Amino acid sequence: MTEITATGEKRLVLVTGRAHPQLAVDIAAELEADLVHTDARTFANGEIYARFDESVRGSDAFVIQSHTYPINEWLMEQLIMVDALKRASAKRITVVAPFYPYARQDKKGRGREPISARLIADLFKAAGADRIMSVDLHAAQIQGFFDGPVDHLFAMPVLLKYFKERLDPTTLTVVSPDMGRVRVADIWSDKLGAPLAIIHKRRDPLVPNKVSVHEIVGDVSGRTCLIVDDMIDTGGTIVKAAEALKKNGATNVVVAATHAVFSDPASEILQSEFIDEVVVTDTLPIPEDKRFSTLTILPIAPLIASAIHEVFSDGSVTSMFDGAA
Amino acid sequence: MTEITATGEKRLVLVTGRAHPQLAVDIAAELEADLVHTDARTFANGEIYARFDESVRGSDAFVIQSHTYPINEWLMEQLIMVDALKRASAKRITVVAPFYPYARQDKKGRGREPISARLIADLFKAAGADRIMSVDLHAAQIQGFFDGPVDHLFAMPVLLKYFKERLDPTTLTVVSPDMGRVRVADIWSDKLGAPLAIIHKRRDPLVPNKVSVHEIVGDVSGRTCLIVDDMIDTGGTIVKAAEALKKNGATNVVVAATHAVFSDPASEILQSEFIDEVVVTDTLPIPEDKRFSTLTILPIAPLIASAIHEVFSDGSVTSMFDGAA
Amino acid sequence: MTEITATGEKRLVLVTGRAHPQLAVDIAAELEADLVHTDARTFANGEIYARFDESVRGSDAFVIQSHTYPINEWLMEQLIMVDALKRASAKRITVVAPFYPYARQDKKGRGREPISARLIADLFKAAGADRIMSVDLHAAQIQGFFDGPVDHLFAMPVLLKYFKERLDPTTLTVVSPDMGRVRVADIWSDKLGAPLAIIHKRRDPLVPNKVSVHEIVGDVSGRTCLIVDDMIDTGGTIVKAAEALKKNGATNVVVAATHAVFSDPASEILQSEFIDEVVVTDTLPIPEDKRFSTLTILPIAPLIASAIHEVFSDGSVTSMFDGAA
Amino acid sequence: MTEITATGEKRLVLVTGRAHPQLAVDIAAELEADLVHTDARTFANGEIYARFDESVRGSDAFVIQSHTYPINEWLMEQLIMVDALKRASAKRITVVAPFYPYARQDKKGRGREPISARLIADLFKAAGADRIMSVDLHAAQIQGFFDGPVDHLFAMPVLLKYFKERLDPTTLTVVSPDMGRVRVADIWSDKLGAPLAIIHKRRDPLVPNKVSVHEIVGDVSGRTCLIVDDMIDTGGTIVKAAEALKKNGATNVVVAATHAVFSDPASEILQSEFIDEVVVTDTLPIPEDKRFSTLTILPIAPLIASAIHEVFSDGSVTSMFDGAA
Amino acid sequence: MTEITATGEKRLVLVTGRAHPQLAVDIAAELEADLVHTDARTFANGEIYARFDESVRGSDAFVIQSHTYPINEWLMEQLIMVDALKRASAKRITVVAPFYPYARQDKKGRGREPISARLIADLFKAAGADRIMSVDLHAAQIQGFFDGPVDHLFAMPVLLKYFKERLDPTTLTVVSPDMGRVRVADIWSDKLGAPLAIIHKRRDPLVPNKVSVHEIVGDVSGRTCLIVDDMIDTGGTIVKAAEALKKNGATNVVVAATHAVFSDPASEILQSEFIDEVVVTDTLPIPEDKRFSTLTILPIAPLIASAIHEVFSDGSVTSMFDGAA
Amino acid sequence: MTEITATGEKRLVLVTGRAHPQLAVDIAAELEADLVHTDARTFANGEIYARFDESVRGSDAFVIQSHTYPINEWLMEQLIMVDALKRASAKRITVVAPFYPYARQDKKGRGREPISARLIADLFKAAGADRIMSVDLHAAQIQGFFDGPVDHLFAMPVLLKYFKERLDPTTLTVVSPDMGRVRVADIWSDKLGAPLAIIHKRRDPLVPNKVSVHEIVGDVSGRTCLIVDDMIDTGGTIVKAAEALKKNGATNVVVAATHAVFSDPASEILQSEFIDEVVVTDTLPIPEDKRFSTLTILPIAPLIASAIHEVFSDGSVTSMFDGAA
Repeated sequence: MTEITATGEKRLVLVTGRAHPQLAVDIAAELEADLVHTDARTFANGEIYARFDESVRGSDAFVIQSHTYPINEWLMEQLIMVDALKRASAKRITVVAPFYPYARQDKKGRGREPISARLIADLFKAAGADRIMSVDLHAAQIQGFFDGPVDHLFAMPVLLKYFKERLDPTTLTVVSPDMGRVRVADIWSDKLGAPLAIIHKRRDPLVPNKVSVHEIVGDVSGRTCLIVDDMIDTGGTIVKAAEALKKNGATNVVVAATHAVFSDPASEILQSEFIDEVVVTDTLPIPEDKRFSTLTILPIAPLIASAIHEVFSDGSVTSMFDGAA
Repeated sequence: MTEITATGEKRLVLVTGRAHPQLAVDIAAELEADLVHTDARTFANGEIYARFDESVRGSDAFVIQSHTYPINEWLMEQLIMVDALKRASAKRITVVAPFYPYARQDKKGRGREPISARLIADLFKAAGADRIMSVDLHAAQIQGFFDGPVDHLFAMPVLLKYFKERLDPTTLTVVSPDMGRVRVADIWSDKLGAPLAIIHKRRDPLVPNKVSVHEIVGDVSGRTCLIVDDMIDTGGTIVKAAEALKKNGATNVVVAATHAVFSDPASEILQSEFIDEVVVTDTLPIPEDKRFSTLTILPIAPLIASAIHEVFSDGSVTSMFDGAA
Repeated sequence: MTEITATGEKRLVLVTGRAHPQLAVDIAAELEADLVHTDARTFANGEIYARFDESVRGSDAFVIQSHTYPINEWLMEQLIMVDALKRASAKRITVVAPFYPYARQDKKGRGREPISARLIADLFKAAGADRIMSVDLHAAQIQGFFDGPVDHLFAMPVLLKYFKERLDPTTLTVVSPDMGRVRVADIWSDKLGAPLAIIHKRRDPLVPNKVSVHEIVGDVSGRTCLIVDDMIDTGGTIVKAAEALKKNGATNVVVAATHAVFSDPASEILQSEFIDEVVVTDTLPIPEDKRFSTLTILPIAPLIASAIHEVFSDGSVTSMFDGAA
Repeated sequence: MTEITATGEKRLVLVTGRAHPQLAVDIAAELEADLVHTDARTFANGEIYARFDESVRGSDAFVIQSHTYPINEWLMEQLIMVDALKRASAKRITVVAPFYPYARQDKKGRGREPISARLIADLFKAAGADRIMSVDLHAAQIQGFFDGPVDHLFAMPVLLKYFKERLDPTTLTVVSPDMGRVRVADIWSDKLGAPLAIIHKRRDPLVPNKVSVHEIVGDVSGRTCLIVDDMIDTGGTIVKAAEALKKNGATNVVVAATHAVFSDPASEILQSEFIDEVVVTDTLPIPEDKRFSTLTILPIAPLIASAIHEVFSDGSVTSMFDGAA
Repeated sequence: MTEITATGEKRLVLVTGRAHPQLAVDIAAELEADLVHTDARTFANGEIYARFDESVRGSDAFVIQSHTYPINEWLMEQLIMVDALKRASAKRITVVAPFYPYARQDKKGRGREPISARLIADLFKAAGADRIMSVDLHAAQIQGFFDGPVDHLFAMPVLLKYFKERLDPTTLTVVSPDMGRVRVADIWSDKLGAPLAIIHKRRDPLVPNKVSVHEIVGDVSGRTCLIVDDMIDTGGTIVKAAEALKKNGATNVVVAATHAVFSDPASEILQSEFIDEVVVTDTLPIPEDKRFSTLTILPIAPLIASAIHEVFSDGSVTSMFDGAA
Repeated sequence: MTEITATGEKRLVLVTGRAHPQLAVDIAAELEADLVHTDARTFANGEIYARFDESVRGSDAFVIQSHTYPINEWLMEQLIMVDALKRASAKRITVVAPFYPYARQDKKGRGREPISARLIADLFKAAGADRIMSVDLHAAQIQGFFDGPVDHLFAMPVLLKYFKERLDPTTLTVVSPDMGRVRVADIWSDKLGAPLAIIHKRRDPLVPNKVSVHEIVGDVSGRTCLIVDDMIDTGGTIVKAAEALKKNGATNVVVAATHAVFSDPASEILQSEFIDEVVVTDTLPIPEDKRFSTLTILPIAPLIASAIHEVFSDGSVTSMFDGAA
């Protein structure tokens, strides 16, 4: 009989929402590919419209969006783009969310609370996403919220490389800014071969619910202190920690974080006399007016581009982190 | 044996998002019930948090939200509230969305477009909604987008009652502002026993894609013209229609619409010399600065409250519209 | 290690139900492919059995069925064929339904009605369909009923081509047979550069619920009138419209429709003195005894074959309609 | 606060398709309830429409349909009714299918076959059915095809009661008409305290695929033979078996079956000289012209009514069969 | 634009649980492939951990596990492996379960029983399995429990080949050990061209529920009897049948079964004086201490390897059984 | 018309697996209810069978199982019981799993790992569970793994009550046994008004991957140290911590944990000279031979019984923990 067959060749398609277009441009440049242009608009009443300029039929599509303020707008835009890809017969749809939205609402602390991080995973699924790619999830358990593969990337190699070239491990101390991040700091301490210190917030016994003391556990006097965290939101905890460190004799205080949420008044108070440098990645866009002289921004695009390349070519994302994280 | 049994008594729970709290208060007042207070907040980076102050376990819960600008914020808030209800063991969750979000994106006009109105239905489902209640859907087919019961309410009885007391059918003409709304105008014409006219936009044969003529089909000279539509967004079409009517001899022009989206510059241009009155309902909040002297706002709360009552008590929502729509 | 790999070559498989085998034969001929023979039978008690004669494992399968009378038989046959394909490990299954079944039951007009057009989409999904391909959906919103890609084809290029070669635009008027199809007629009017007329059914004020007048809006006297609709079922509306046109001075009346449902007494009354020609496509089979001298049947197979080709080869279906619809 | 509560009272709703309305009437009579009237119609092109005349909101609804010829029509009608109930907010929907459609297509005998009995279960689920009730499934495994409760009723108590009053166990032999129903006959043999005989079809060694001999295993000479089966379709096997029994000396041959499919030429050939009586139930309608003098029809309505009562009142369906099946 | 494309080449991945590693090794050898090593461990509290040593991204993965005692352990191990494959982005996951677990619990015999065979299918689906491959399902209907393709292999060709070389059809009788397996024996009888006999267990009329007589239907005296069954569990029925055959004059008794469950005391009592040979396949592991001198074990790996090859290369599994089963 | 209605009365049904029957008996006693007896058996090949002795139709059923060794057996038993409840028409099914199985496998630490804790949630869902109730989840995020309500109970009130009556806060120090449990210890420290100490395992710089030092952060000399953890598995970490505390001058070391997994050699090494008392609850069964003189077992049944009572009567589970956790 007359048979019609076709090679199974597949095509990579990169599209981006409007939250952080530069990141997508950088990722495309790393991959030596072009973004498929998306006609995305917001109508007067706030509804978003999106349409791709080229056919995406049968493609392996990656929808890049950075969940910065206003986060719900960008989330809806990404969901709408995923829906459009699904209905346009993309073969596989990967949501690239470098900063996973609502990551901190990952459990019920009290009755009648939502678990919004799980809701987000369900919304991506409902829209048609097959996979999720994200960087430094606030809790690794979020991977389990999605019913499908999640590529969990670590920014640590990017940050470590920067610090290894600049800091002397013999005078360095890794600092956890509070009890909740001790485990992360522990890994950094290991990777850098430097001792660990912890900031412990103690409640004032005389004033209920008042944290009055920032106790430092570990030796920081005369040392360069590297405060590590996954994200900087308003910056309050970090600045308080830095102050305590300097007052306890630290010579330098450097802050490292993956996600620069920088809600007000972060960019203002981070320019504190107690902080010598703040190093972040650009998983989230940092507008010019939130940048300051002691801020260093490391590009995350090479990491994400590598991961996309591995996913597209059925390679291994895990192997990217061998020996580093 | 010792058996433990309980009566199957069920409890009505009303909660509301922050988009249009007055509407929820009005609905609760109609039902002589109280709203369960919701602690809803938006964090600095735009993430929303919601928690109910009382137990909702086993309840028949209605989540009221009005999808006004910024529409994506209020949508996410409602989804988060539904998630919280689901995880708090509400027995049945009904989304009350008087103005269905993204209703105009109900089909693929071109390739690679989303069908956002279906996406919205899927997001409600994914979050945990069992039912949807809405008023005057832009297209009745949207009912079929949700995999479950949809209570489709009609504002027509509310609007008709107002006009029947005020307009004289013998001098009245019902007007469809464009070709797409002819069917709705036809029903109004029937209900009011008044003739029908249609505004037809004709393309200028000399200028491509330019609508230059607003042709009026039907007799309007010396008559009171009632332009009917389901929503007023920017108001442009309505004002152009009114102008054409007046220029063709209409003595009065009154506009009736269910949903007052009122995107700029609607509230400004609706104060046109060609329009004598604009009558809408409050399915969407209308802030003070968008109200004007010739605007009449009819309360939609009684209608929604009746429907909630019917749903809760296993009555009939359809019977509410017998003889009226 | 010893790796076993295979090229991802994929194979096109066409199968057809028994409702309209000629259409499938024509489509296969256009594609220069063969149909995979299906052993389909109906047992004495009405149960249907279907089995494919060749392996379909890993294939990109298209199940062609035309939903003519008896529509439920053909629907079940197609569902059974989809189930068989799924269990036989076809890689992707596309339902080809040129005339979408139950398309007119697309909303709840009254309480306690089904939305059968959505039910059909759910049944296709439950059986295992990944995609749907259809021609001229009664309402475009039906695309949103299916949770997956829908290829919505337009017969307009096929029909337009026929008329452009035969009708003179300067003496032509496009006519909408009722208020509900005005929007479609508007597009035809645009494409043909001809003016528009509308038939308006008016209720007789003296006899309740009686339509007594067929008013014509627009100029038809001395012109060739082209009545356009998506389908012709019993033909009543069309014939009444034609009569009104001729009585108002139309010189010629031509009818164009995509789907020739032709329920009785359509084929009889369409041979009216008021109608000069009826032009349809063969999305539905038209038995010999329903054909008449003024009926022209345009083949739809080339259009569907092109769309299948685009889908199979990851091309663009939308591009088929550039400039035409 | 002001609380609104309601008792959880629930209401039984019975509706029926048009396949076998008498059965539904009988069931309703047994329950001393009324059927909710359904406006069901078939349009000229074969599409079915259904709507309930009363509110079914919050009800415990049972949709009775008998899957007789034309089976696909009745199946679609029932699916459409289930969809309408779901969208009309029925609380729980039970499909009552006394004769499960497509029950014999319950496995893949060869490659590329469907498993239509599973497909049916999936279609009921997709339409919105919560539960299924059926009588004497062709294979008990079909219960496992549905993802939810299945009430599997046995007609045996109905049939046994009839025979116990009429047949003398000391001269009775239970006969399995072929190898595939031996297990069922074995149970009957046990219940009636009568010996078992089996009809074995043997292939003729000289003619390939030709069954030439109907061997009887067991003693039938001078005995009353009761052939038992779950259904009678065309009746061929039964008549051949009866002939063999009589030719081997059986004095009487009585046939018992639950489902009277009676495809042609069943009602004709069952009036064989070799068969003294045929006893069936009315799970399927038996039109007057298919009835004959030696046919006895036992009513199944009491059994189904009892089961519906047990389901509605949270009783036990199983207990109905204690000691009997 | 710059396009990135990749060939759709796909890779076969074989992994195995720890229940019967030799079988997987044999299958891999037949395929001339290597197993991807799995690091599988059981922690002190009984929890299982599994991780693959190599990337499986984009692969066509087959998870081989043999469901022997302790069956629940091996089932959970396989489910965990499927979950790991899904999260590691395997493209397609096939569960290879030569002996389908819980196959005998395929229906509700009484009220409040589970249908565990369906539950197993649902668990495989929930974990992420796309397909199931199994040998000689206890009931063919189990195929319908899984919502997807099931490759149902038959061991009969393997067993037949063995017997055709060793047994003389002219002195052979095929024996069904009870009423429930008559249909299988019937097929063997056909394939071997040998007559059929059946063992009928009759209840003792004096002792309730006591089976006292093993009646033999058919001629066995002076013949070689081949008892066929799908599995041997404790062996009791088989041994009783063999004893009855020998006592009725059978010269030889040979037993053939696909699955050697061999629960105690099977391996002991099968060494009965009434049984000359027991022939099984190694779908289940048979430890050294359960083997005995008259036991012959035929390798099943060639059959499974062929089927995997056909599935991977989009060939036909059915064609493997042409002419044989 | 004749209406049939019923009150919506609901019935509580408690059933238990065989892992820890005493716990279920205790819960039933607290509720003054009886357990519905379950006929549960394990066949020779390891397959489990379960059936309830009474009707559970329409009930609110709670399936209690304690996931102790052999954990996979008890998990499968519970899944099978849930399946049986679903098929027996239980209205709502709550899985009561005091110690959530596979809780520690809650994320992918490395590539190609499963997320077994999520898999477990999916298996419960697939079997038919509507809700989950558990005590002290290893990570609170596990709540988000289940698509439905999870009642997360805290044993802290039970443990706190015991210690508040016995320990003097002025001489007490709460100790976290490692970096990962600091947050839990922090809460205890707060509740008891006692200072906090942390055991920090430091790697030996000379020996890679060797933890050589158990550093104590905080003041423990002369104090009663309360080591708190969610579970004790093999006990190694706890004993090492206790030794370090005593060697650093602690006068007493008491250990508190919710879940007594007690894998070998836990019960042996916990009888260390460095530990004065070990206090656990009986979420898991502790066989006689694993009990020792310094072990105190607090009953968890009152807590679970209260929660079941609240769930059944639509009360609030959260309110049980007001002021306590």
